[in-house]
Amino acid sequence: QILSERLGKGSKTVDLELEAKIEILRDTKRKYENLLALSKVLANHFTNIIQTQKVLGEAFAELSAKSQELQEEFRYNAETQHVLSKNGEKLLTAINFFISGVTTLCSKTMDDSLLTVKRYEASRLEFDAYRNDLEMLNLAPRTEANILKLATAQTAFNTNKAMYDKLRSDVTVKLQFLDENRVKVMQKQLLLFHNAISAYFAGNQHELDAT
Amino acid sequence: QILSERLGKGSKTVDLELEAKIEILRDTKRKYENLLALSKVLANHFTNIIQTQKVLGEAFAELSAKSQELQEEFRYNAETQHVLSKNGEKLLTAINFFISGVTTLCSKTMDDSLLTVKRYEASRLEFDAYRNDLEMLNLAPRTEANILKLATAQTAFNTNKAMYDKLRSDVTVKLQFLDENRVKVMQKQLLLFHNAISAYFAGNQHELDAT
Repeated sequence: QILSERLGKGSKTVDLELEAKIEILRDTKRKYENLLALSKVLANHFTNIIQTQKVLGEAFAELSAKSQELQEEFRYNAETQHVLSKNGEKLLTAINFFISGVTTLCSKTMDDSLLTVKRYEASRLEFDAYRNDLEMLNLAPRTEANILKLATAQTAFNTNKAMYDKLRSDVTVKLQFLDENRVKVMQKQLLLFHNAISAYFAGNQHELDAT
Repeated sequence: QILSERLGKGSKTVDLELEAKIEILRDTKRKYENLLALSKVLANHFTNIIQTQKVLGEAFAELSAKSQELQEEFRYNAETQHVLSKNGEKLLTAINFFISGVTTLCSKTMDDSLLTVKRYEASRLEFDAYRNDLEMLNLAPRTEANILKLATAQTAFNTNKAMYDKLRSDVTVKLQFLDENRVKVMQKQLLLFHNAISAYFAGNQHELDAT
């Protein structure tokens, strides 16, 4: 069936609405995975920043202890870097929570639906093969052998149609649930991500005013 | 003279106070260079952060345009990353200004003083060699040849003592000026560095409140 479809022979069952939804899912997954990759890069760079701020804070503190005439100037810079690295850890935790949430959505929830999609696509292929067989036999002369073959083909067609219909319905239901779940998860994650960043800047500003 | 000093023979002129000041300068330079290296690492990581925030902001914006049900959530995250990368550029400029100021202090101002220190140290070595020559001749029997040698040695001693005294005074004056300059430069740079960071966080908090 794959071969005859590739050669443009044999007809193909197409559920345009469902196909479109599957394509949207695959596209959404690609986009979220891109978001994930960028968030991981951000978390990575941010880890480096926090590490550097820690060491820089210590260097400023040491210079503050050893330079009488610049004690104060080195001190407030030491405190600044200390505050930033401390609050940075909290933001990093939040970024990692976002990464973990979106990873689960992509690698578990979406992949689970895409597995059902794959089974549905395989079943569509089998169903079309049996459907095309049946159609050919229907056009063949009604010899006794062909009538027997027709009965077998009809049974196979019925079984595969039931399986295909079942999987198509499964996919439709799964995609519906997935979409509701995705919106709920992303609404929460995107809000937390934004709030964590706002809290980081507000907290830093508040504490820096005291240095 | 280097050789006899290494072997523990021949006396050595030592200005304890000046030697201590020179040692402090070398130590301060090492510490500031460490600060510089850390600031450059910070600037580097921060450049990476800004780049990632830009790309992440664009990814959020694209998702906002294409996801009706999460338009708002993606939008405010796009704006957040946009604000952060924009204000980050300003902070990066300030960090680079700090780096440039401290680099000038270390590589030009301090190095200039250390060059005078090196010339002073070389002149001290030469002066001590002529001084030890003169002392040896003073202990030698007063033959006519030795009296002639003594006169030559005395002239060489006087010339080199004058040179050594001049360079010692040069170093003393340079170190004094350098110290005043260093404190002035670092006071300014450390204040600007701290204020730039505070401004970055205050500005971000202010703009994030609007997202």
